[in-house]
Amino acid sequence: MPDHDFRHELAQQLRVDSVRASDAGGSGHPTSSMSAADLMAVLLDGYLRLDYATPDNPANDHLIFSKGHASPLYYAMLKAAGAITDEELLSFRSFGSRLEGHPTPRIPPTDVATGSLGYGLPVGVGLALTGKRLDQLPYRVWVLCGDSEMAEGSIWEAFQHAGWAGLDNLTVIVDVNRLGQTRETMLGWDLDGYVARAEAFGWKAIAIDGHDVQAIDAALAQATSTTDRPTVIFARTHKGHGVKAVDDQPGKHGKPLEEPAEAIEELGGVRSLSVTVQTPRPGSPCRFSTDGGALPRWEIGEEVATRQAYGKALVELGGLRGDVVVLDGEVSNSTMSELFAKAHPDRYFEMFIAEQQMIAAAVGMQARNWVAFASTFGAFLTRAHDFVRMAAVSRADLRLCGSHAGVSIGEDGPSQMALEDIAMFRAIHGSTVLHPSDANQTAALVAEMATLPGISYLRTLRGKTPVRTSPDENIRVGGSRVLRSSSDDVLTIVACGITVSEAEKAADVLESSGIRVRVIDCYSLKPIDGDTLLAAAAETRAVLTVEDHWPEGGLGDAVLDALAQSSARPPVRKLAVGGMPVSGKPDELMHAAHIDAEAVVEAARQMLG
Amino acid sequence: MPDHDFRHELAQQLRVDSVRASDAGGSGHPTSSMSAADLMAVLLDGYLRLDYATPDNPANDHLIFSKGHASPLYYAMLKAAGAITDEELLSFRSFGSRLEGHPTPRIPPTDVATGSLGYGLPVGVGLALTGKRLDQLPYRVWVLCGDSEMAEGSIWEAFQHAGWAGLDNLTVIVDVNRLGQTRETMLGWDLDGYVARAEAFGWKAIAIDGHDVQAIDAALAQATSTTDRPTVIFARTHKGHGVKAVDDQPGKHGKPLEEPAEAIEELGGVRSLSVTVQTPRPGSPCRFSTDGGALPRWEIGEEVATRQAYGKALVELGGLRGDVVVLDGEVSNSTMSELFAKAHPDRYFEMFIAEQQMIAAAVGMQARNWVAFASTFGAFLTRAHDFVRMAAVSRADLRLCGSHAGVSIGEDGPSQMALEDIAMFRAIHGSTVLHPSDANQTAALVAEMATLPGISYLRTLRGKTPVRTSPDENIRVGGSRVLRSSSDDVLTIVACGITVSEAEKAADVLESSGIRVRVIDCYSLKPIDGDTLLAAAAETRAVLTVEDHWPEGGLGDAVLDALAQSSARPPVRKLAVGGMPVSGKPDELMHAAHIDAEAVVEAARQMLG
Repeated sequence: MPDHDFRHELAQQLRVDSVRASDAGGSGHPTSSMSAADLMAVLLDGYLRLDYATPDNPANDHLIFSKGHASPLYYAMLKAAGAITDEELLSFRSFGSRLEGHPTPRIPPTDVATGSLGYGLPVGVGLALTGKRLDQLPYRVWVLCGDSEMAEGSIWEAFQHAGWAGLDNLTVIVDVNRLGQTRETMLGWDLDGYVARAEAFGWKAIAIDGHDVQAIDAALAQATSTTDRPTVIFARTHKGHGVKAVDDQPGKHGKPLEEPAEAIEELGGVRSLSVTVQTPRPGSPCRFSTDGGALPRWEIGEEVATRQAYGKALVELGGLRGDVVVLDGEVSNSTMSELFAKAHPDRYFEMFIAEQQMIAAAVGMQARNWVAFASTFGAFLTRAHDFVRMAAVSRADLRLCGSHAGVSIGEDGPSQMALEDIAMFRAIHGSTVLHPSDANQTAALVAEMATLPGISYLRTLRGKTPVRTSPDENIRVGGSRVLRSSSDDVLTIVACGITVSEAEKAADVLESSGIRVRVIDCYSLKPIDGDTLLAAAAETRAVLTVEDHWPEGGLGDAVLDALAQSSARPPVRKLAVGGMPVSGKPDELMHAAHIDAEAVVEAARQMLG
Repeated sequence: MPDHDFRHELAQQLRVDSVRASDAGGSGHPTSSMSAADLMAVLLDGYLRLDYATPDNPANDHLIFSKGHASPLYYAMLKAAGAITDEELLSFRSFGSRLEGHPTPRIPPTDVATGSLGYGLPVGVGLALTGKRLDQLPYRVWVLCGDSEMAEGSIWEAFQHAGWAGLDNLTVIVDVNRLGQTRETMLGWDLDGYVARAEAFGWKAIAIDGHDVQAIDAALAQATSTTDRPTVIFARTHKGHGVKAVDDQPGKHGKPLEEPAEAIEELGGVRSLSVTVQTPRPGSPCRFSTDGGALPRWEIGEEVATRQAYGKALVELGGLRGDVVVLDGEVSNSTMSELFAKAHPDRYFEMFIAEQQMIAAAVGMQARNWVAFASTFGAFLTRAHDFVRMAAVSRADLRLCGSHAGVSIGEDGPSQMALEDIAMFRAIHGSTVLHPSDANQTAALVAEMATLPGISYLRTLRGKTPVRTSPDENIRVGGSRVLRSSSDDVLTIVACGITVSEAEKAADVLESSGIRVRVIDCYSLKPIDGDTLLAAAAETRAVLTVEDHWPEGGLGDAVLDALAQSSARPPVRKLAVGGMPVSGKPDELMHAAHIDAEAVVEAARQMLG
């Protein structure tokens, strides 16, 4: 029988420690912690199966604070579980402490960083999918959500997918404390409204008083015994519960209590209870068998779309590595990840048109050491920009592919054209950004992505390009290809992707009039091949970049950065997509954007005077 | 009495013209058009009140194709309504045609570009809000959604907000044709599941056979007579309806019909029906009265946060202009838009924590000529990146403000720090990017934003900065401030926002050891003040940039770009945030990121040898 008195006391300790940590840190969200303290006390004492001493235990349950600002509560739980000392608890928010303002993986066993609302639950869905279909272990995923974040669309992507997938290993607890940062939420304490929504999305939904430890226990018991569907518990709570000065009071969001000593006294004083958290049943994760294979190879001169090469490379990578998994946003016959889906159906995840949930699912999978590749149109990855940003804060290793780069896609028009994706991904911390121009480059880079840390991004093309690179050439992150070079070169043209062919055509024209140019295929945009670019800058009089991307943040800016401090600093001119594209044939649009061979020739002549 | 036979014939014409347009264009989505043809025929003939000859009529209804790929159907409707000729219809997807692959405002009366799924409905919510609370006109907003896009979280942000706001002037028609691009949707033809979801979000929901023109008529009549809540019609349809070869067949997404002539014959041949679309009752939009006022002014030396100046400037702008409206993502006491909310409550829109719906609502408002400012933390604007991108394709004029820039926010940690926002906004087509360092700059730029075309972005700071700029100084988009300058300057330091003070402190240190430096406050990042930078580059030996942003896509890259082709090209070194920040005090984090005065001094000495 659960000891309800102990749990109540534990909850009060969690409140006291939330107040103390926020006071010590000089900022933080104690009231948002106090509302959920009873919920977390019962979870910690009775339901969580997490070996805090061995955070890497694959059988561990997972606990995600989607309301990351309730970090004081999260850290107070770590203290109660013996994972941190009281001294460390009080280091909250100080420089160098593992206990940041919002949780990050710097403090184990935290799987992912949270703090951008609406991010934690979709990652939890990813972990629950991983438990069911990849690890095939009986761990449970617990997610604490705030009620304010129920307004985020990403939450409903998660409800939709988890309901559809029947993730009964997922339990969500929503702390319905009614008060957002500045006002009441849209639903306030309308638990019936929340329950109706969750049930409509195929979930088991339970409404309780979130300060009643017996009711919490009953709800968590129901959750763990519910099969075929995920469970959500909507808990009616008071923000700041337990301290009259802040209990259900507006204007008390995100600040330490004004009278912490009195508050602690009102809560019954400092306690030092410790909880023996249940450890999980031992278990080892599944690994899929492999059948060997080799990277695909194409002959020089073949015409192949790099998106096709992406799909074929994934198939072979899946044969070589049992830990590779693939996700797509319901465009797999465009990105060509469908080839993997057909070859390795047990490791393919259809995420439908929900890019945020797709990225979050991949983040959940990599948290359990799966090598996740996710793809959609490059343009639509902007839909998940914040999720990619938070993946970087989460120290996640993710492999992303965006197809349909630039105006070269043609008739579909600007809504479908990735024109800002290089800028977006270059400005992700620790990222790698790749844009191969042919199939063999693509295959080599896909293989290397599987072992890269951080967020790597591969940009692929809709149309076919000629294979110029030998399958045996050393194509690598940070590399480039010099397509033509001589000691008489007066100009360097730097291109990537679709514009490599344009650069080559332009070089032919220029050379026919006696102008020798160097042409560099800069397939690795971050890191960029600085040595090759610096040599070209030193050996030629000018540099011309040409890319199928907006002028900002793409190839041209990457080249400028590489040359910024060199001793030779020739003038650099960027050709990029200047105006808003329309529909048309690829060559018409490349011409209109002034990024075709004709534009390169014209710009080259202008630069050389 | 409606003429059901005529409507059936009209629907067949819309199908035929969808087939013809896609065939002429050589690509497109005829089957996704054919499923919704009956729905749109009844709407066009019986319910839409839109004066196609006068697209700017403020009383017009609005029709948004959220499933923008059904553009052949949309254009077929334009032809039936007499807005375009058959010849123009057949120019579909050709270079120069107004009829792009997905609709854009290039073809009136299209309010916004669509084609990124999940975008049209939230904009429709914005237009419906505008009709209710701003224009105060009885126009109706009609949105055609696809069923695949129901997986997008942004759709549920829209359902949530519209239900909460009781937008009974909004009618959504969901074309439940079951088939997505590669497979069946999660819900297939489970109309009950859709109805339950919509009702749980507070909508009137109606399920019908989407090919039964009488049922469609009854549903639309119900929608227009429903008060207090929006209505959604879930219509069970067949993708490719009417042509056996593609009717409800997989693998027929996004391609012209293989046998168009036979299909047209099966559909009863080419027709030339024309519809007299109802015109709206005349009406003029409301304009709010103004009480005059003047921009706020601060004395030099005062310490004021630029976010505070943003809020105060908005208040006065609202007094000067009756067309200014403000939206916020439930952080108005952080962004300080709460000052406007208090001063002009009838023009403030609380959008809760739903950044995509916030941007979309602003897009809807500007489509009706309101001057919309929307704000949240700069970091959280990444959540709406695709919506900002699509706003640019929509030729929208939007004013956005992102607060809490960079590591200088301190203890909250990296999830709350905008460190990629400049890169993101610089790479938006036609954008303006501003980052003032003090309050008077902020006020001047906010005022100028009100008249700027395109997407403008203002980045504000959490902490206070000293006022250095006179309220009478000419602060303008494209400008900069030279804080110190002499003919003996050997180095130029370019800073913006929080780093301007660091640059000034560093300049003091350097000058005390005899090194004269120029300091430029580059508050306009796009467009950037090229003339001032070029002069500095010509007159000093080196350029050092310092910014509270990732190294990619920010101030440093903008400066490099400005100097790329200049005759004087001194070395440029960028100081920016290199490592993942943690929690700490602002000065600790600025120091750790090597963007404080000490880092500037050190880098300057290194550059000068």
